[in-house]
Amino acid sequence: MQLTLPADVPADKEKAFVENFEETTGGSGRLMLFAGDQKVEHLNNDFYGEGIPLEDNDPEHLFKIASQADIGVFATQFGLISRYGRDYSDIPYLVKLNAKTNLIPYSAKDPYSQQWLEVDDIVRFQKSSGLDIRGVGYTLYIGSEHEHAMLREAARIVHEAHLNGWIAVLWIYPKGNFVKDQHDRHLIAGAAGVGAALGADFVKLKVPYIDGILDTDGLKEVTIAAGRSGVLCEGGDRRDEEAFLLELYQQIHHGGSRGNGTGRNIHQRPLEEAVRMANAIYAVTVRNASVEEALQILEG
Amino acid sequence: MQLTLPADVPADKEKAFVENFEETTGGSGRLMLFAGDQKVEHLNNDFYGEGIPLEDNDPEHLFKIASQADIGVFATQFGLISRYGRDYSDIPYLVKLNAKTNLIPYSAKDPYSQQWLEVDDIVRFQKSSGLDIRGVGYTLYIGSEHEHAMLREAARIVHEAHLNGWIAVLWIYPKGNFVKDQHDRHLIAGAAGVGAALGADFVKLKVPYIDGILDTDGLKEVTIAAGRSGVLCEGGDRRDEEAFLLELYQQIHHGGSRGNGTGRNIHQRPLEEAVRMANAIYAVTVRNASVEEALQILEG
Amino acid sequence: MQLTLPADVPADKEKAFVENFEETTGGSGRLMLFAGDQKVEHLNNDFYGEGIPLEDNDPEHLFKIASQADIGVFATQFGLISRYGRDYSDIPYLVKLNAKTNLIPYSAKDPYSQQWLEVDDIVRFQKSSGLDIRGVGYTLYIGSEHEHAMLREAARIVHEAHLNGWIAVLWIYPKGNFVKDQHDRHLIAGAAGVGAALGADFVKLKVPYIDGILDTDGLKEVTIAAGRSGVLCEGGDRRDEEAFLLELYQQIHHGGSRGNGTGRNIHQRPLEEAVRMANAIYAVTVRNASVEEALQILEG
Amino acid sequence: MQLTLPADVPADKEKAFVENFEETTGGSGRLMLFAGDQKVEHLNNDFYGEGIPLEDNDPEHLFKIASQADIGVFATQFGLISRYGRDYSDIPYLVKLNAKTNLIPYSAKDPYSQQWLEVDDIVRFQKSSGLDIRGVGYTLYIGSEHEHAMLREAARIVHEAHLNGWIAVLWIYPKGNFVKDQHDRHLIAGAAGVGAALGADFVKLKVPYIDGILDTDGLKEVTIAAGRSGVLCEGGDRRDEEAFLLELYQQIHHGGSRGNGTGRNIHQRPLEEAVRMANAIYAVTVRNASVEEALQILEG
Amino acid sequence: MQLTLPADVPADKEKAFVENFEETTGGSGRLMLFAGDQKVEHLNNDFYGEGIPLEDNDPEHLFKIASQADIGVFATQFGLISRYGRDYSDIPYLVKLNAKTNLIPYSAKDPYSQQWLEVDDIVRFQKSSGLDIRGVGYTLYIGSEHEHAMLREAARIVHEAHLNGWIAVLWIYPKGNFVKDQHDRHLIAGAAGVGAALGADFVKLKVPYIDGILDTDGLKEVTIAAGRSGVLCEGGDRRDEEAFLLELYQQIHHGGSRGNGTGRNIHQRPLEEAVRMANAIYAVTVRNASVEEALQILEG
Repeated sequence: MQLTLPADVPADKEKAFVENFEETTGGSGRLMLFAGDQKVEHLNNDFYGEGIPLEDNDPEHLFKIASQADIGVFATQFGLISRYGRDYSDIPYLVKLNAKTNLIPYSAKDPYSQQWLEVDDIVRFQKSSGLDIRGVGYTLYIGSEHEHAMLREAARIVHEAHLNGWIAVLWIYPKGNFVKDQHDRHLIAGAAGVGAALGADFVKLKVPYIDGILDTDGLKEVTIAAGRSGVLCEGGDRRDEEAFLLELYQQIHHGGSRGNGTGRNIHQRPLEEAVRMANAIYAVTVRNASVEEALQILEG
Repeated sequence: MQLTLPADVPADKEKAFVENFEETTGGSGRLMLFAGDQKVEHLNNDFYGEGIPLEDNDPEHLFKIASQADIGVFATQFGLISRYGRDYSDIPYLVKLNAKTNLIPYSAKDPYSQQWLEVDDIVRFQKSSGLDIRGVGYTLYIGSEHEHAMLREAARIVHEAHLNGWIAVLWIYPKGNFVKDQHDRHLIAGAAGVGAALGADFVKLKVPYIDGILDTDGLKEVTIAAGRSGVLCEGGDRRDEEAFLLELYQQIHHGGSRGNGTGRNIHQRPLEEAVRMANAIYAVTVRNASVEEALQILEG
Repeated sequence: MQLTLPADVPADKEKAFVENFEETTGGSGRLMLFAGDQKVEHLNNDFYGEGIPLEDNDPEHLFKIASQADIGVFATQFGLISRYGRDYSDIPYLVKLNAKTNLIPYSAKDPYSQQWLEVDDIVRFQKSSGLDIRGVGYTLYIGSEHEHAMLREAARIVHEAHLNGWIAVLWIYPKGNFVKDQHDRHLIAGAAGVGAALGADFVKLKVPYIDGILDTDGLKEVTIAAGRSGVLCEGGDRRDEEAFLLELYQQIHHGGSRGNGTGRNIHQRPLEEAVRMANAIYAVTVRNASVEEALQILEG
Repeated sequence: MQLTLPADVPADKEKAFVENFEETTGGSGRLMLFAGDQKVEHLNNDFYGEGIPLEDNDPEHLFKIASQADIGVFATQFGLISRYGRDYSDIPYLVKLNAKTNLIPYSAKDPYSQQWLEVDDIVRFQKSSGLDIRGVGYTLYIGSEHEHAMLREAARIVHEAHLNGWIAVLWIYPKGNFVKDQHDRHLIAGAAGVGAALGADFVKLKVPYIDGILDTDGLKEVTIAAGRSGVLCEGGDRRDEEAFLLELYQQIHHGGSRGNGTGRNIHQRPLEEAVRMANAIYAVTVRNASVEEALQILEG
Repeated sequence: MQLTLPADVPADKEKAFVENFEETTGGSGRLMLFAGDQKVEHLNNDFYGEGIPLEDNDPEHLFKIASQADIGVFATQFGLISRYGRDYSDIPYLVKLNAKTNLIPYSAKDPYSQQWLEVDDIVRFQKSSGLDIRGVGYTLYIGSEHEHAMLREAARIVHEAHLNGWIAVLWIYPKGNFVKDQHDRHLIAGAAGVGAALGADFVKLKVPYIDGILDTDGLKEVTIAAGRSGVLCEGGDRRDEEAFLLELYQQIHHGGSRGNGTGRNIHQRPLEEAVRMANAIYAVTVRNASVEEALQILEG
């Protein structure tokens, strides 16, 4: 993929932006995002319980994986990065700038996930800490009655990231009392278009299915509607590895997606296995590996 | 039309304002605004589906049209401009500063569409990117319980645009629980007066009809009530071309409108046809073309 | 009336304040305020319809009257001043800093009319445009659940006006679910006291009546409760001229009011007649004219 | 009482703070606060009506009393001070920074009384006007759903006052849907503790009674719970003078209060009598006068 | 415990941070936090009543204890520190930056406890007063509909504390209409993870119990989920001393907690006994004392 620079990247940040984009995508234009923001989003549900190895309960597990595996970026909250960063300075980070808990059901109150820190705070932090920060991320819920506040924060974050030569990833999910079916392909395509209108480099979205099977045509509608913003498919609940990797391949090669954001399917495993799974995902996403090649990586 | 400079354009920006006004209106004082903000406002409804060519799903379609056709300005969100601007630096842009999705029905909750970026952000962007930005736009919903917040944002945006020598366009629609008939001519005339009181250069409004026929007298009430703010008639759903162009002619020559804002009637077509339709609209709006001349342009 | 300078007018603005006060009150301490803010407050209801001359629909009608008639100040929104100011630079303006539409009934939702622009914006505008701006105005609704926001904005506006040597006029109306009778004299007197506590130079208020007749004693309670803030009586709906002028005389000479704010009773007339009516009101208010003299002026 | 300087008074303001504290308390550590903020809080109810002399309707009445009587400080809104300050520059002022009307019943909506002006505005005003301003005041309603906003404003105001060498007085009243009995002694003691936690120099509170008789033990709980913040007892409705002065004496000498805030019991009288009543209150509060001595002062 | 510096502590504050961490934890990495913020949180309930010595009603009681006992930090509101700080300059303080009263039940309205002062205010105060301030604290309620505002404030406070070389303690409690069981171990573990994601140095949490007995396994889930943020166990209502100290020992040595926050179990005693109780808690927490040793300290 030929990168087209966003026009709001200033001349003195063009080189930095290109480098950030090329390095996080391994020159492929596709992003393997290791998602580690669930400590807030899902509280401890994803990290402790049946079928989850005990080591996943310790947040350092995420850093160990991110440090040892092939990944594009490790996306997590600033606080975790500040607590582990000095020991994991080799990880390419994407700072997730907002998060909310899952305690209030979407059916009860429309969600609002507010920005925690300013992009300028992170820029100053990057300079003082020397950590390898490549960009910022933000989740917005279209259809929420607080949509307006999140649209504004998202637009500002994308623009401020570009002003600093960083990439910006938006998680965009339709949520709220008036959202009938968040899995509808047209609605997901709408969310993709919102991401494009916000200028995001990547948009993490729901994936359209028909009877549990990837809706490739639907995904094409989505990825084309996103224009030059790359679509990252949501990893979702932990699933069978082969099925996961096959669908990932189809998403990219048949559906036009440009990566994925995966958390549970990686970290809910013992460290070494988690690293291999991440590597398999990376190979498919960035290195054009086939599903067979990926399974070989997974099996070590 | 003799341009009267807004008094809040400072001396050192008078030349820029006059140039922006004259160039976007082709010296006619009338504006052909190509509306491309529906990726957020209508999600993917306007871009994909029955009767819409597949190429319309790609946001670049809008930029191709805007680049090849005669237009006054292309109005769209900052993010899209940032993603395509380097490849479409010849387009005269009007940056739409707010937008909302259509997921919450107006009947359920009064709308609030918040400003995304500051005018100063866009000014800095214009300088750093060199893009051909001519002005800014903003939508406000009078009658909404959030009217106060939008009136304030609109007033500030118009003033800040003028301080920078730019034109300002307001979309003003009566919406909310207590708005009985948003198509009532007196109410539209009221919205026109609000636009005037906010100092807008152009106000995009609903169009009054009687039994589906343009209410020319009603439109006169509206355009006179708008004073020196030019009224842009909303383009609306895609319609028959001849009817569209005829009504456009009547709006201008019988109703006193000073242009229109058209999206779907242009972009829901293959590129070449879309360009011809835009050219036809431009000819009627700016070049005093007759309906017949416009139809000839449309037919190529 | 002997002017007592507000203590928050700084030394270097005392001369400006005295001049603004003396010129707008013609040395009488009484203000004839020509109210032209209804384009937002009443939408097009006051400007088009039965009994209203067609020329009133054009906002310029207001500027023509304000330019040709004897007035203290012409109070209207910034946007209108910016659009017509270069052609009407002789008018003494008072910039109304907030406004709301009438689409939501007071019985349904408590009103909030938010400030549009800062006093500093207007000060900068005055300097760059050279227009004859004498002060600023603001409407607040006591008894609204949003009262706190408007009290704060009003207090700041009055103080900032004084810091710049300008006069400040507050429109104070009791409105909201818990306001039983906004015409009660004690309540109006309360509003007058709020204006005094906010430091306003003038407070525009409802007028107390008993069976449709001016309640002179009630008005005295009001005007005394206002202390050194001058009470402006609301002009209200268009009425018989002689009755209007007689009541105006009584308000001032029997009730202690210090002027009035009149809109519809002036502008809902052909230009020349409107000018004569304004002159008659000015004569009674500022020049101590009798009702007979005023009627002679009205008749030309 | 030995004054202990708040630790947030900076070194270069210590002298000013000590002077302000000593002069307003006459060296006694006790404050006689003449409350004149009711023009907003109670509208015109306290100033006009049966049993109230007509002169009380004019706000200048308050300034005449404050100027001629022995008082600690005269607490009123900035706007009134700005309108009368040049003629009453000898009064020691305490600027009340917020106020609300009584139009919405506490039972209907939880109250929010927002700050009008910043402490820095008042500091600048003091310097430019030379008026004798000794401190600032603020009312907060604990138990209101807006408590959080008022706690923040109060904490900032107290700190900013100290940074400028001024004293800070908080009025703290439990109000709102979930406040069962605002006269409960434990609840008043809780309010006292809130005042201490906010760092107030003085806290004006409700007074505990048992069957209409001052609850001295209860008041002791309150005044001890307030720590080093002095408790000012609310003056309340106008009452019999002897009973008022006797209770005032008991509040101080048996209950540990450090002053009172009195409005109606002073100003609802002809000027000369009001001055004598204020002097009597001052004598008990600051000069350790007996009730008999105070009554002699009252009788002239 | 080996301290790992947060990555957002800048180079020139590393020494200060290490010193603050080492001194407040006595080199143990564990914190004995003496909680004195209940004057607002519980009003006067904790300080006056049956079984509480009268001296506890005076806020100075807290300062006397904090001054004479072994403690890590004394956590209380800024206002109390400002009123007593000059006389108690030897106490290590942690400034609690927010607080709310208990007047509105959690079942009725979701809580919002807003930040009172900025970290920068406290930094300036520390410099001007020379007081021994070691850090700041903040309470947030996850599951509240205002969670977003508190998450943002908490994230900023932790980061700003680190920028100044201070430690940050978060109190995190699940509260609100949709929180079913705030004592559920998984939910407490979730709160611990939120504290980690916010970068807190210490997180004060609820303690999991099974039938009234400390759930050691549950607490392990919690303390591991907190990662490098140390878990402080809530002290709660006053209890039997031996049971209290025994559980404290188990929390630390079996559950992995890194300290506790205790208020009522200390201050609801006569001074000398309170000092001994604090010393006993400190010995267990910081000096690895056995329960027997602690009981000897308690008995003097």
